[in-house]
Amino acid sequence: MGTPVRESGGVDVLSDEEAAVLAAIDEAEVARTLLELIAIPSVTGSPAESEIQHHLAGRLRASGLDVDLWSMDLPALLADPGFPGSEAPRDEAWGLVGQTQDGGDGPTFVVQGHVDVVPPGDLAAWEGDPFVPRVTGDLVHGRGACDMKAGLAAELAVLAALRDSGVRLRGRVAAHFVVGEEDGGLGAFGTLRRGYGGDVCVIAEPTAGSLITANAGALTFRLTVNGKAAHASSRYEGVSALDAYVPLHQALARLEAERNREPHPLMAAYPVPYALSVGILRSGDWSSSVPDLLVAEGRLGVRLGEDPAAARAEFERCVARVCALDPWLREHPVAVSWPGGQFASGRLPAGHPLPDAVRAAHADAVGGPALPERGAPYGSDLRLYAGAGIPALQYGPGDIGVAHSPREHVAVREVVDVARVLAVTVLRTVGTK
Amino acid sequence: MGTPVRESGGVDVLSDEEAAVLAAIDEAEVARTLLELIAIPSVTGSPAESEIQHHLAGRLRASGLDVDLWSMDLPALLADPGFPGSEAPRDEAWGLVGQTQDGGDGPTFVVQGHVDVVPPGDLAAWEGDPFVPRVTGDLVHGRGACDMKAGLAAELAVLAALRDSGVRLRGRVAAHFVVGEEDGGLGAFGTLRRGYGGDVCVIAEPTAGSLITANAGALTFRLTVNGKAAHASSRYEGVSALDAYVPLHQALARLEAERNREPHPLMAAYPVPYALSVGILRSGDWSSSVPDLLVAEGRLGVRLGEDPAAARAEFERCVARVCALDPWLREHPVAVSWPGGQFASGRLPAGHPLPDAVRAAHADAVGGPALPERGAPYGSDLRLYAGAGIPALQYGPGDIGVAHSPREHVAVREVVDVARVLAVTVLRTVGTK
Repeated sequence: MGTPVRESGGVDVLSDEEAAVLAAIDEAEVARTLLELIAIPSVTGSPAESEIQHHLAGRLRASGLDVDLWSMDLPALLADPGFPGSEAPRDEAWGLVGQTQDGGDGPTFVVQGHVDVVPPGDLAAWEGDPFVPRVTGDLVHGRGACDMKAGLAAELAVLAALRDSGVRLRGRVAAHFVVGEEDGGLGAFGTLRRGYGGDVCVIAEPTAGSLITANAGALTFRLTVNGKAAHASSRYEGVSALDAYVPLHQALARLEAERNREPHPLMAAYPVPYALSVGILRSGDWSSSVPDLLVAEGRLGVRLGEDPAAARAEFERCVARVCALDPWLREHPVAVSWPGGQFASGRLPAGHPLPDAVRAAHADAVGGPALPERGAPYGSDLRLYAGAGIPALQYGPGDIGVAHSPREHVAVREVVDVARVLAVTVLRTVGTK
Repeated sequence: MGTPVRESGGVDVLSDEEAAVLAAIDEAEVARTLLELIAIPSVTGSPAESEIQHHLAGRLRASGLDVDLWSMDLPALLADPGFPGSEAPRDEAWGLVGQTQDGGDGPTFVVQGHVDVVPPGDLAAWEGDPFVPRVTGDLVHGRGACDMKAGLAAELAVLAALRDSGVRLRGRVAAHFVVGEEDGGLGAFGTLRRGYGGDVCVIAEPTAGSLITANAGALTFRLTVNGKAAHASSRYEGVSALDAYVPLHQALARLEAERNREPHPLMAAYPVPYALSVGILRSGDWSSSVPDLLVAEGRLGVRLGEDPAAARAEFERCVARVCALDPWLREHPVAVSWPGGQFASGRLPAGHPLPDAVRAAHADAVGGPALPERGAPYGSDLRLYAGAGIPALQYGPGDIGVAHSPREHVAVREVVDVARVLAVTVLRTVGTK
């Protein structure tokens, strides 16, 4: 039961094989897949992260791919000097790659997606269970709906349609499904370290109808402020770690403003391309004691092309300047460490033909205004692929603006459109026999 | 084995009975008692809070007192409109009163002490286990050493010496040993509600060689700030509860300064008599998310004679002013609640003879400069006794400046001195036959 090619889709310019593959993409099946994936609560570092990899391995096998599902060697990866960092503790983590039979005469096209989702946060903010997908009209709501179970569903639809249509590829398609994107990139790193590569890569992260060819980087920082405990009634005999932190919080806001002056043109449309934000703060354990410890963790945006070491150094200089102005902090300086995700920025090489290929496929398979190109303020696996010399861009269903929030949702129509565009891009890039 | 009356103690002015009681106070026994009490980790709300009450009941019985050890009716007390508040959850709480035989012809002198201690906090800051008392020279170190296992040890020494010396009292002495002072005053409240009273009361909280006849009050507040979650990379699409809180933190510092202008003369010696301090802050659960919730708890000092309702209202007006200046907080105002301890201020009635009685006993039993009188910036059970019409002051061994800190300690010599002063004060107030 195929979806008919729509009139707006520019039927005439599609080859018979392209039309056959598009006809094999089934909207109802895409929606079923999406609901199924959301229902697996694959929070970063949770046991369900492993569960979903095993589930997806079954899906890839069912689409006729050669599947490599492996338990990653965590000690070796964590000890690797290039390891991008992680936050969630894990006893195990699974890698998953599925590949079509190698046609032997064409490039390898990687479709990539991360299987982990961020925790739901305050459950009271959700309408219902975040892992019981809720459907309203064409929209599907739930944790991971757009980031990025929708992208995975689109990629699975392409792979199934390639098999169902019986096309013979000159090169091949490889699905890289990875864990741990949200806490640093463990899965992508382990996949690349295992030797998997490709000639081009599309990551189906939510891009809301645009092509993202560059990622700002993001570095997770931790600030540890030591104070001196005392009873609150004689607070002047202690030093509040929280009071000491407040000027630092304000200095970090000023640092963010400085780092966002004259951003790269690909990033210029964002109000704050390189956000610096504190996400966690913990201080004190008794309302009537002066807190002697504060730990804050946050995220420092890295500019396009900026060396992460330079970004870290600028941040540390800012912290040191604040400490130098305070008698207590001068003697008890705030400690800065860099746990968790350490994303460099990354870019598709300027002039690479992939964006035009996707745009043409979009024009022919879906229609409508040309897909705009932009950078994204958030880090992702793109930079690991870029760093490994694999030209990569992000193109996928949904809007990052609702990702990580209780309003997360995606339109099934958008998932299907992305699957159609991806399918045509793959066919034209890999070639058919 | 009695401690001989020291030459500096003004032997001549002591009666034979006073000298006999002082001779029955044994320094080594006082030290043993102190170590024994510190070793019971009676953290507020913990099972050891009950354990120490049973232990102390045995001590009181051994000193020949009539003992009332009862399981308090928590639901009834918590529902009482006068309940001062509590923080630690409890399944049970024990009251303990021991009384000497009523001589029938004199006043009742209450010696009061709380048996609970605050949690040790960061264990790494301690030299060794906080509940394994450490002795260096004359000093005993450990959680509760001065606040207020030392005061309890002094009171137990007085009661034992009264029995050992065989004096016959005209009135009587009542020991009120209470739980839950540190989290609001549950134990004192339950003791007074059970009908126990007295004509005067000395609370052996650490006063470092002075008489404390007034307590500032202290109100535990909670601030709940709601933000709006978003991914940190597009933080401008959310609202950080932490960013929203910072101006409020600074406004509270200004409010503290206003509330400490021209304090009462009894409080004028303190740098900040009525401290306003945030002791706990929690915000966010992911370094790369904009935190959508912040909860802060702290302590608002109440001026001598100030209606707590007026202090709360002034605090709430300050919060409301900050909210009015911020577009987000105007629509999502910070919630203020008042959980936990709610101490009014309290005072011994001006002109009451008790301070002079203690001063005279000090001059005669210990000697040295006259004990100065002052107020204290911290709330305590004093205000509950004052509120019940029982004239009360605090006089006890140790320095509140090291209470609630990993540096907590007390000198055994000071514990013995307080016991001597208390014993003579009791004898002169209650009278002997």
